[in-house]
Amino acid sequence: MGDQIGSAVSGTLYYVAPDEYQRVKNTSLDPRVRTGILANLNRLNALYMIGRAGSGHIGTSFSSLDIVSWIVHEQLEGDDVYFSSKGHDVPGFYSCLIGAGRLDFENLHKLRRLNGLPGHPDVSVDGIETNTGSLGMGVSKAKGMVWADRLKKKQRRIYVLTGDGELQEGQFWESLSSAVNHDMHQITVIVDHNKLQSDTFVSEVSDLGDLDGKLNAFGWHTQRVDGHDLAALAQALKNAAAETGKPSIIIADTIKGKGVTMFEHTQFDSSQGTYAYHSGAPSAEEYRLAVNQLIESLNREFETHGLDLLRLESIEQAATSAPQNQERLLPAYSDAVLAQAAKHENLVALDADLVLDMGLIPFQQAYPDRFIECGIAEQDMVSQAGALALNGFLPIANSFACFLCSRPNEQIYNNATERTKVIYVGALAGLLPAGPGHSHQCLHDIAALKGTPNITIMEPGAPCEVGELLDWAVNHATGPCYMRLLSIPFEPNFRLPDTPLVHGRGRTVREGSQACLITYSPVMLIEAMGAADLLANDGIDVQVIDMPWLNTVDDRWLADTVGGRPLITLDNHTVAGGMGETLAGPSGTTIILQIGVDEIPRCGSNQEVLEHHKVDSGSLFIRIKDFLASI
Amino acid sequence: MGDQIGSAVSGTLYYVAPDEYQRVKNTSLDPRVRTGILANLNRLNALYMIGRAGSGHIGTSFSSLDIVSWIVHEQLEGDDVYFSSKGHDVPGFYSCLIGAGRLDFENLHKLRRLNGLPGHPDVSVDGIETNTGSLGMGVSKAKGMVWADRLKKKQRRIYVLTGDGELQEGQFWESLSSAVNHDMHQITVIVDHNKLQSDTFVSEVSDLGDLDGKLNAFGWHTQRVDGHDLAALAQALKNAAAETGKPSIIIADTIKGKGVTMFEHTQFDSSQGTYAYHSGAPSAEEYRLAVNQLIESLNREFETHGLDLLRLESIEQAATSAPQNQERLLPAYSDAVLAQAAKHENLVALDADLVLDMGLIPFQQAYPDRFIECGIAEQDMVSQAGALALNGFLPIANSFACFLCSRPNEQIYNNATERTKVIYVGALAGLLPAGPGHSHQCLHDIAALKGTPNITIMEPGAPCEVGELLDWAVNHATGPCYMRLLSIPFEPNFRLPDTPLVHGRGRTVREGSQACLITYSPVMLIEAMGAADLLANDGIDVQVIDMPWLNTVDDRWLADTVGGRPLITLDNHTVAGGMGETLAGPSGTTIILQIGVDEIPRCGSNQEVLEHHKVDSGSLFIRIKDFLASI
Repeated sequence: MGDQIGSAVSGTLYYVAPDEYQRVKNTSLDPRVRTGILANLNRLNALYMIGRAGSGHIGTSFSSLDIVSWIVHEQLEGDDVYFSSKGHDVPGFYSCLIGAGRLDFENLHKLRRLNGLPGHPDVSVDGIETNTGSLGMGVSKAKGMVWADRLKKKQRRIYVLTGDGELQEGQFWESLSSAVNHDMHQITVIVDHNKLQSDTFVSEVSDLGDLDGKLNAFGWHTQRVDGHDLAALAQALKNAAAETGKPSIIIADTIKGKGVTMFEHTQFDSSQGTYAYHSGAPSAEEYRLAVNQLIESLNREFETHGLDLLRLESIEQAATSAPQNQERLLPAYSDAVLAQAAKHENLVALDADLVLDMGLIPFQQAYPDRFIECGIAEQDMVSQAGALALNGFLPIANSFACFLCSRPNEQIYNNATERTKVIYVGALAGLLPAGPGHSHQCLHDIAALKGTPNITIMEPGAPCEVGELLDWAVNHATGPCYMRLLSIPFEPNFRLPDTPLVHGRGRTVREGSQACLITYSPVMLIEAMGAADLLANDGIDVQVIDMPWLNTVDDRWLADTVGGRPLITLDNHTVAGGMGETLAGPSGTTIILQIGVDEIPRCGSNQEVLEHHKVDSGSLFIRIKDFLASI
Repeated sequence: MGDQIGSAVSGTLYYVAPDEYQRVKNTSLDPRVRTGILANLNRLNALYMIGRAGSGHIGTSFSSLDIVSWIVHEQLEGDDVYFSSKGHDVPGFYSCLIGAGRLDFENLHKLRRLNGLPGHPDVSVDGIETNTGSLGMGVSKAKGMVWADRLKKKQRRIYVLTGDGELQEGQFWESLSSAVNHDMHQITVIVDHNKLQSDTFVSEVSDLGDLDGKLNAFGWHTQRVDGHDLAALAQALKNAAAETGKPSIIIADTIKGKGVTMFEHTQFDSSQGTYAYHSGAPSAEEYRLAVNQLIESLNREFETHGLDLLRLESIEQAATSAPQNQERLLPAYSDAVLAQAAKHENLVALDADLVLDMGLIPFQQAYPDRFIECGIAEQDMVSQAGALALNGFLPIANSFACFLCSRPNEQIYNNATERTKVIYVGALAGLLPAGPGHSHQCLHDIAALKGTPNITIMEPGAPCEVGELLDWAVNHATGPCYMRLLSIPFEPNFRLPDTPLVHGRGRTVREGSQACLITYSPVMLIEAMGAADLLANDGIDVQVIDMPWLNTVDDRWLADTVGGRPLITLDNHTVAGGMGETLAGPSGTTIILQIGVDEIPRCGSNQEVLEHHKVDSGSLFIRIKDFLASI
C-alpha cells in the first residue's frame, strides 16, 4: 500500500550481469541450493534497481524472492503463468525475469523510468501477465484465466503470489468460493506471509486470526511452509499440482526484508515506530551495508561449493542535491487535523494502512481513542465512518486517492444518501509521483466522486490552503467533502494571496490581461506559472488562478473573473469529469481550452512524465499559445 | 438484488388495523406464540403494501418476518438497535414497525410513494437506523456504531440481519476480522438463510460451502437455528448476548416466502425457471390465494387460543389498464447479445445474480459454456472479465448500473489500464424506476466511470439503438465500453430517424429552430418531446436530439448542429459528470442550460418523482421557457 518516495542512492551502485547469472545456472548444484543463490543475486539486482530509481519496495521484494526465484527458474512449465497480486514486490520479480533472460537486461537500469519498468506491474513488460498494484484482485484474475483456458481447451497451471496484508481486502475472500465451486485445481496461490503491511505488523493492524482454518473452511487445499525453505516449498508446490479436485493455497511464512539483517522485520520493534523498508529507498550508507552483507553471504556460498567469487558490475551515481525551499502538504494536513481535533471532540480519523503516508501519526499519538486503524479494507472503513457520522461523530476517512475514490465508491454514495457529513482525504492524488505507476496515479477521482449527492471536492494548492479547506469542511460544509492531496515535495514559484478563502472562488496567483488560466494542485500551479513566464516572454499576458474547489463554482465570480476573455482550464486529472468540465457550463459565452491527462498515466520520473503528457510548462506554453492564436 | 417492477394488485386489498394488533399484544399468550401470530399479521400487511405499491420483495420479507417480529416485539431493550443489511426485506420490517406502533400507521398505504416509505431503507423513516439496499455493508456499519458507543460510553446491543446471497459480497468477509480483534461482542448478526438469491438457489449461483465452519474460523461465536422456531431463536439470541468475548452470528435456516405455500421456496424447482416471488408483485389471483391462506392460518391459531376471529380492513384498488404500445430495451438487449454471440465465438457474458433482470436468460440457454454466473460479487466478476479479455475473449459484464459503476470501480479502472476491451452493461440506469429508492436509482454512473482511460459511455434511446450501440462496442470500439440501460417499459412519443449511427453524434427526433435540446434515455426523450410540444404551443420552436454518446462528442457536429443557438442539455444523471458537462467545453460560444438531477434521488411513483425533481415535461417547459427568456 504505502509508497514513500525516497532519493536515489549516490555513489557506487553494484549489479549482477547476465554472464554471472549464467555461471550459476550452469553449475550442477542441487536446484534448491542453486535457486537460493539466484535469489540472492536477484536481491542484489533488486536493491540496485531501487537504489538507482530512488524508490521501490525492498521488504516485500526480499521476502518473496526465494519463492519467486523458485517458481521462475524451476516451477513454470510450458504455458504456465505466474503473477503477483500484490504487485509492489515487482522489483524482485523484474530482477528474477532479467536474471532468467526472460526480460531484456538493459531494463535493469530503467526502474520507474519512462519506457522502462513501471513501479507496479504492467502488461506492456515481457513476463507480466496482468496489471496489479491494486490489492486483492489476484485470485479473481486467476479464475478468469481458468475460464479462458477451459473455453480454449488449454492446459496450464496458474501461480499467484499474494501478500498477507492484502488478505484484509474483501475481494480476496469474495473470490475464493467460486474457485472451489468450479473445481479450479489449476490455481496455486502462495501467500507471502511476511507478517508486515505498509507500516507495521499485520497482527497489529487487523489480525488475520486462524488463517489456515479460514482457508480450509473456504474449501481450499491449504498447506503451510517456511517460504525460505526451498525443499519444503518445492514439495508443497508438487502437492498442490497433484491436487486435482480443489484450488490450492500455500501459506509461506517469510521474513520481510529477508537476506539483509537490517531490512529483516525480525529486527523491527513496532513500539519504536514504523518499519522503514516497506517503500522508498535506503540511504547511501544503508545501501552499502546491505550490498556488503549480500556479497559476503553469496561468497560464502560460492566458496562452500568451490565456485569463483562473485563478480559485480558497477556504475557511479552522482549525488542529487536536495532542492532548496521545498514545501509539502502532508505536514500541513497533520497539523490541520490536530487543530480541528482539539476543537471538535467528535472528530475521529479512520485509516486504511497508511498512517505514515497520510501524515496521521501525530493524530494517532495525540488521540489514540479517536484513531481507528481499519487495515487494507477501504469498504469496511468507509461504512464504519458512515455509521459513526450517523451516531454524532465527524469521521475523516483516509487513504490514497486512487483507492479511496474507487474501492469504496458505493459506500461513499451510500453514506451520502444518509445526509450526514463524512470527510474523505485522499493523498497521492494526481499525475505525480509518476514512479509508482498507474495503479497509484490518480487522475479519475474527481469524476468518480462528483456524482455523489451534495459532495464538495477540493484540493489545496499550497500548505496554507490545507488548513483553510479542512476548516471549511469541518465547520462550514453541510454534506460530505473529499479533499485530494499532492504527496510529493515541491518548490513553489507562486504565492497564494492573503485574501480569505471563499467557497466556489479561486485566488489569483499571477495577474494577466489576455487570457485566464485556472488550475489547482501545487504541481499544476508550478507548471502554469512557468508557462505564463514563457508566454510573457512572447508578449502574451496570462492570468493564473488557483481554484481549490473542483466541483463547485461561484458562477458570478467566474463570469466577472473571466470577463469574456479566453479561458484555459488545466486539470491534474482527466478532462473528463475534472474541474474544467465543472467550469465549462457556467462559463457562458467563453471560448475554452480544456487541458488534462486523458490517457493511461505513464510511469517515469516526474519531469519526463509531465513532458510526455504535455502538461509541463514548456508544452503548456505551446498549447496555450497555439490556442490563443487559433481564436 | 433483483428488482422487477410489477403491477399494483386490483380489487379488494386487506390489511390489519392497529386495534387488531393491540388485541393480540394484550393477550397473555406465551410470547413465542404471540410473536408467531404477530409475524403473520405482519405478513398480511407486508403483502398489502406490496400489492398496493405493485412492487416489493415478498420472498425475503416473509422468510425474515418471524425473526424480525421477535426482535422488534421481544428482544430490543433500551437503546438497542436493529437493522437489515440486505434491506429489500423492508416491507416486512415496515409492517413490523407499524404493528408495534413505532411508525405512524398511515404509512402502511404509502410504500414506494413520494414522502412515504422508500423501497429500500432510508434513515428519514422512524425506526430505520441506516440506509441499506447495497449489499454487504451491515457488519461494517454495526462496527461503526460500536466505535461510537465506546467513545460515548454507551451500552447497547446491535442486531443486524443479513441475507445469505449477500454473503457472496467481499465486504461482508472484509468486515468480520476487526470485529473479533476489537472484541465487539455487542454485535449479533442473524443470517436469514433462506437458500435463494434473486433468481434461484444460492447453492446454484455461488455455493456458500461450510458456512458454519467459515464463520467459526473467522473467530465469531456461531450458532445455527431454525429461523421459524421462535423458542430456538430466543435461546440463540440469549446465548449471543451472554457471550462477552466475541461478536456473535446466528445462521437462521428459513424458508423464502414462508407462510404462504405458493411463495415458499420449497415449492420451487430451479430446473423449471426462476423463483417468481423475489421482487415485483403477485397477480390479483395470487394475492387473493395468499391472503386467504394467511387468514385461515391466523384464524386456526385464534380458535386454538380461544380468541375472536381476525378482523380485517379493506380498500378497493382500481384496475390499472396496461398502457398500449409499450416498448422495452431489455428484450432488445437480449437479442443484440445473441446476435453478436453468434458472430463472435470469443464473446462471453458474465452476470452478478441478475440473469433475469439483465435479460440474459436467452444467452445463458443458447451459450451455457460462455455464460459465467458470478453471484453477488461484482468485484470478482469484473476482475475475471479483465483476465478473460487479456486472454483473447470479449467479455460483457452485467449488473445494475448502481452496483456496476461503483462496487467494482477500481477493477474497471485496472482492466482499462491493460488496454483490453471489456463491455460493461448496467441496467436500471437513471432516475426511474423510482420505487426501489436511492440505493438502486443510478444518477452517478457516467461520472463514476468517465475518468476510466479510453472508455466510451453510451445509452440507447430506443430498442433499435440497443443493437446499434452494442454492435459499435463489439465491432468498432478499441477500448472499454459502458452501456447503461433503462429497465422500465415506456410509451415512446418520438421515433429515431433511419439515419445511421455515427460515433459522437446525436440524431434529431424533432426539428426546431430556436434552441437545441440534447438528451438521451427513453425517459428523458419522452419528457423532452412533451416539453417541446408545450413550448411549441407557446410559439417556441425547439429541436430535440437523442445523444446516445455520453462522454464523447464530435465537436464539429456539435458546433454545426447547435449553430450558435442556445443549448439545453438534459441528463438522466447528475449534471455533475453527466453528458451535459461533456458537451459544455467544446460547445464554444454557446449559452447553455444544464438540467439534471443533482439531489439524492427520491423514491415514489415514476410520475411524482419526475415532477419532484422538475424533469417532467411540464417542469421542463417552464425551465426552458424561463431560460430562453433570460438570455
